[in-house]
Amino acid sequence: MIFVMKKDATDKEIQDVIELIQKYGLKPHLSKGEERTIIGAIGDESKIRNLPFESFPGIENAVPILKPYKLVSRDFQKEDTIIDVEGISIGGKNIVVVAGPCAVENREILFETAREVKEGGARFLRGGAYKPRTSPYTFQGLGEEGLKLLYEAKMEFGLPVITELMDPRDTDLLCKYADIIQIGARNMQNFRLLLEVGKIDKPVILKRGLSSTINELLMAAEYIASEGNKKIILCERGIRTFETATRNTLDLSAIPLIKKLSHLPVFVDPSHGTGHWDLVAPMSLSAIACGADGLMIEVHPQPDKALSDGSQSLKPKKFADLMKKIREIAKLVDRSCE
Amino acid sequence: MIFVMKKDATDKEIQDVIELIQKYGLKPHLSKGEERTIIGAIGDESKIRNLPFESFPGIENAVPILKPYKLVSRDFQKEDTIIDVEGISIGGKNIVVVAGPCAVENREILFETAREVKEGGARFLRGGAYKPRTSPYTFQGLGEEGLKLLYEAKMEFGLPVITELMDPRDTDLLCKYADIIQIGARNMQNFRLLLEVGKIDKPVILKRGLSSTINELLMAAEYIASEGNKKIILCERGIRTFETATRNTLDLSAIPLIKKLSHLPVFVDPSHGTGHWDLVAPMSLSAIACGADGLMIEVHPQPDKALSDGSQSLKPKKFADLMKKIREIAKLVDRSCE
Amino acid sequence: MIFVMKKDATDKEIQDVIELIQKYGLKPHLSKGEERTIIGAIGDESKIRNLPFESFPGIENAVPILKPYKLVSRDFQKEDTIIDVEGISIGGKNIVVVAGPCAVENREILFETAREVKEGGARFLRGGAYKPRTSPYTFQGLGEEGLKLLYEAKMEFGLPVITELMDPRDTDLLCKYADIIQIGARNMQNFRLLLEVGKIDKPVILKRGLSSTINELLMAAEYIASEGNKKIILCERGIRTFETATRNTLDLSAIPLIKKLSHLPVFVDPSHGTGHWDLVAPMSLSAIACGADGLMIEVHPQPDKALSDGSQSLKPKKFADLMKKIREIAKLVDRSCE
Amino acid sequence: MIFVMKKDATDKEIQDVIELIQKYGLKPHLSKGEERTIIGAIGDESKIRNLPFESFPGIENAVPILKPYKLVSRDFQKEDTIIDVEGISIGGKNIVVVAGPCAVENREILFETAREVKEGGARFLRGGAYKPRTSPYTFQGLGEEGLKLLYEAKMEFGLPVITELMDPRDTDLLCKYADIIQIGARNMQNFRLLLEVGKIDKPVILKRGLSSTINELLMAAEYIASEGNKKIILCERGIRTFETATRNTLDLSAIPLIKKLSHLPVFVDPSHGTGHWDLVAPMSLSAIACGADGLMIEVHPQPDKALSDGSQSLKPKKFADLMKKIREIAKLVDRSCE
Repeated sequence: MIFVMKKDATDKEIQDVIELIQKYGLKPHLSKGEERTIIGAIGDESKIRNLPFESFPGIENAVPILKPYKLVSRDFQKEDTIIDVEGISIGGKNIVVVAGPCAVENREILFETAREVKEGGARFLRGGAYKPRTSPYTFQGLGEEGLKLLYEAKMEFGLPVITELMDPRDTDLLCKYADIIQIGARNMQNFRLLLEVGKIDKPVILKRGLSSTINELLMAAEYIASEGNKKIILCERGIRTFETATRNTLDLSAIPLIKKLSHLPVFVDPSHGTGHWDLVAPMSLSAIACGADGLMIEVHPQPDKALSDGSQSLKPKKFADLMKKIREIAKLVDRSCE
Repeated sequence: MIFVMKKDATDKEIQDVIELIQKYGLKPHLSKGEERTIIGAIGDESKIRNLPFESFPGIENAVPILKPYKLVSRDFQKEDTIIDVEGISIGGKNIVVVAGPCAVENREILFETAREVKEGGARFLRGGAYKPRTSPYTFQGLGEEGLKLLYEAKMEFGLPVITELMDPRDTDLLCKYADIIQIGARNMQNFRLLLEVGKIDKPVILKRGLSSTINELLMAAEYIASEGNKKIILCERGIRTFETATRNTLDLSAIPLIKKLSHLPVFVDPSHGTGHWDLVAPMSLSAIACGADGLMIEVHPQPDKALSDGSQSLKPKKFADLMKKIREIAKLVDRSCE
Repeated sequence: MIFVMKKDATDKEIQDVIELIQKYGLKPHLSKGEERTIIGAIGDESKIRNLPFESFPGIENAVPILKPYKLVSRDFQKEDTIIDVEGISIGGKNIVVVAGPCAVENREILFETAREVKEGGARFLRGGAYKPRTSPYTFQGLGEEGLKLLYEAKMEFGLPVITELMDPRDTDLLCKYADIIQIGARNMQNFRLLLEVGKIDKPVILKRGLSSTINELLMAAEYIASEGNKKIILCERGIRTFETATRNTLDLSAIPLIKKLSHLPVFVDPSHGTGHWDLVAPMSLSAIACGADGLMIEVHPQPDKALSDGSQSLKPKKFADLMKKIREIAKLVDRSCE
Repeated sequence: MIFVMKKDATDKEIQDVIELIQKYGLKPHLSKGEERTIIGAIGDESKIRNLPFESFPGIENAVPILKPYKLVSRDFQKEDTIIDVEGISIGGKNIVVVAGPCAVENREILFETAREVKEGGARFLRGGAYKPRTSPYTFQGLGEEGLKLLYEAKMEFGLPVITELMDPRDTDLLCKYADIIQIGARNMQNFRLLLEVGKIDKPVILKRGLSSTINELLMAAEYIASEGNKKIILCERGIRTFETATRNTLDLSAIPLIKKLSHLPVFVDPSHGTGHWDLVAPMSLSAIACGADGLMIEVHPQPDKALSDGSQSLKPKKFADLMKKIREIAKLVDRSCE
């Protein structure tokens, strides 16, 4: 931590900061410049990071030196985290594609979709049994019935299942049926939910919040890791900006940046990220081109009849075409997609 | 709902939309212009609002006519909602000030703060027993112990208590001790929590999410109202923008706008809204000047020792001074603050 | 400037930074912590502020200590800048209200508006002769003809005139007719225009850009001041955010913050800031309550016939009513509005 | 245009809107629903688009049907615009890479860079002779001297030149030396400059403003086209969001979206778009993968000594490596890069 003192800070105010630093077990390091006095705090920064510095009259600014996250950082672990789910590696050389309907609607559509995405080359099946919806008057998901259908589809087609957890009370239930637990964008800072999935033995896919910085995403992952669960996949799915022509603004430069800062695998969800089915294919290719470890893509056999987010869903045929391009582009960046 | 067809939409595509409208029990109304064909859907818009229109090849754009919320809208209820809490009216002519520490830290500080804010003129005591914190390594609140201290402070000083609910499993516990349940900004779209507080018999103060539109705030309130609980207070607490000089950007023009759209009372939290204690007083006055029904202000006897958000806390003396100004400005806009 | 070195920075890399600092005439100050080495640069920070630090392999982060602006800062000049325009003081105890139509349309409407706002209590007349419009197909202003009408209105009603400069080639012409030159939001970083008005002898009102930080606004003012013109008025007029219910988000907390950082007067434009005439009155009062030195308000006798921005214009009667409230609220914050 | 009337709109208010529509030569089309009355205006929408509808008491909302731009839209011209510059086609099947230093600093560096980027495969040389800088105290460019150096480099290496115009008074001068005139992000809504380059006979590359929507970018292009110059290249270079880990947020989904809406070529500038040299390569590949027609990349032989934006500049060797990958990825999306 570095403290920049105000231009007119008194000796007493400088002394107060020095004592504060010492009180927390760190060592102060004074440096008097022409315009400002600077005080460095040498030692364990986490002990003083959250003090209310603005309440100290002499301090103009307090600058942290270290990142606030630890377990999820590249500093802490140099090599990439690779997660094994039913024999499929996530975070390694092979790129993994997750596909399926936004919501589980009924057995017929789910099974048809599962069969088609399996054929197309998806390795995981996605589908919401519990759906976060902006309006209380829209379809909220089938609940446990939906979980069971997902499990049946997994058994039938050999695709492990990803589904969203919205309520800590449903954790055990979801763990019974799902292979990867999703924390949705709107719950990225639902800290109780994070602590909950930090205690389970299943991988967690953590979606970036609509207005969350990369730093906050990594802090949310740190919540999970701090409880013991290190099997975390991060997912960029678009952030909220002033632009309304797309549903969200897909922040692809976050991918190579996060890969520098953290050892965790990073996925991209181009369906929610853009909100338009005809932007899904180009943005999927872009995501692979800049280093994504996986994709989550919404596929629906009849998007115009989907109960949720049909506007951003691909038809199975288009998905299969896209998968061919994904495989080619994967090779180009020294990856595979099998 | 109005459907704008693409320039080159075929007769078949137009017919498909007409049939879609009829299928959901609405009446189509065709209007052929020089550049575009427009199809209006007359009837209950909520039945078709969430259909995936983009999947219909002929549709260029689908424009909703009505607001997606109902129970919380001014259209539905013309007169202001007034909520009575232990004899104190919220949403009426009198402006209500809530004050207290960010987090409940211990009995001594809580009681000292409660006594001071009571003297200053606050009508409610705020204080977090459960704290949503960006880092898992910082103070997370005292939990039930904190709730008990709040209750004791209420008994001692006659200030009803507002505290935050973060987990549906804590609902009963909070209702035992608190008079108003707060849903924090990070949980504004935690829909399970919204449904939960929709079923209780306590007023709820719902804080606007960091990147939530006014429309989404009202939809979140609609979630609560749809379950039966109509005692909802909205709270503007700053939104996330590109500006980093303040912690958030306090969106005060939301106040008069929400008062037009909804009958619910609207509070302002200038402490979180700005993040700097020396901006709290001017923004409190501004909030009253543009029509806020109440304020939530962080007060701490020793901000430099606070375990949470001390940088934005007022000292009791400054709070008392501010209250005097608030009372004067309230009169000026034909309100009172007693 | 403080340089935080990477965890694994080599001695050579540290030495390079030390030499860089010395090369620019500053003094390095080394501090080795457990996790990171920190190098402070003592001396004239402006000499090294803009170096491409990221290109140095050993540097993790470079943290500036001082603000990048000087002439416009409170550090440089403690007392408020007060600007005299034809006997009217701007930036002193008295709050100044500027009113008029968005664009000068014709003599009749301009004169009617001028007479009405004069009666209501405005001290300056605003009106655009050159209009920045999003579409090339809309009314672009009367040009010099509009300037002449403004000047005639000034002579007739005794209201000095504010009008916008869009092109450096028009500078002399505008200076002939106008008393204060406006730089619009879209030109806040039109640096050539800033340098141009830095050389004239007229006060400049500089509007904050739609997506400009407070820091950038002050840097734009520094451009003007650096050329010699110190008569600068800043103007908050709403920033662009994700919220679309208002035209812009009026950032009122910027007012008290700028007053801390700079000695320049700060105005607020609630008409452009909100885009809705019925939000203009409440936000005007809020602006005064938090310390604005003046207001710019659009007034039009027949808003529904205005050629530009009628939706945000007040009728003269409503303006006069508002002025009464403004005077009362001014008193409350120890100001006047005469 | 469609007018949604307020729930309680009177017959008189409805009649007023009907007469307004007729007054401007359009045909009203009335549709009475259960909740709202809707009035469509059939005919030339541009005649009424900018009327101040909010000033009409009965109107709740006015919804435009058509896009506000015309000449630059795909509706107006189905086939892609292809621009020929000294025998190089822009906007066709071949992807064009522009490279060079941020600013022209001196002959030696410029020539070294030009030679290297030519060898690497760039087709155009970029370099600023006039630089928009946030601070008045930093290097502002060499001016005409810089233009001459660019011209000499062109003659020497056969690379046509792109450079930025900041002031309408410099137009003739730039046209003498440059092959493509750049309008920078900060001047995207400098409408006078747009009109100026609308009259010249050189292609214009128009950079998206920091907080400009895609719609506004296309309207700015419409300004240029409306004056007669149809040779316009659009350029995505990152938008301003809440995320501060990157200099801007590169909005790549804008590329396929703009290609749907407009026939103009679209470039991407990953150097300004990210602000970090090590994000330039991955984002370049992403840009090609989603359909960009060209790239603008900053290259500098010694980034750590660059006078401007060295942090985001690639070294020549890295540029050459990147070009190889770009060529491969171009093939994959059925393009070439020669």
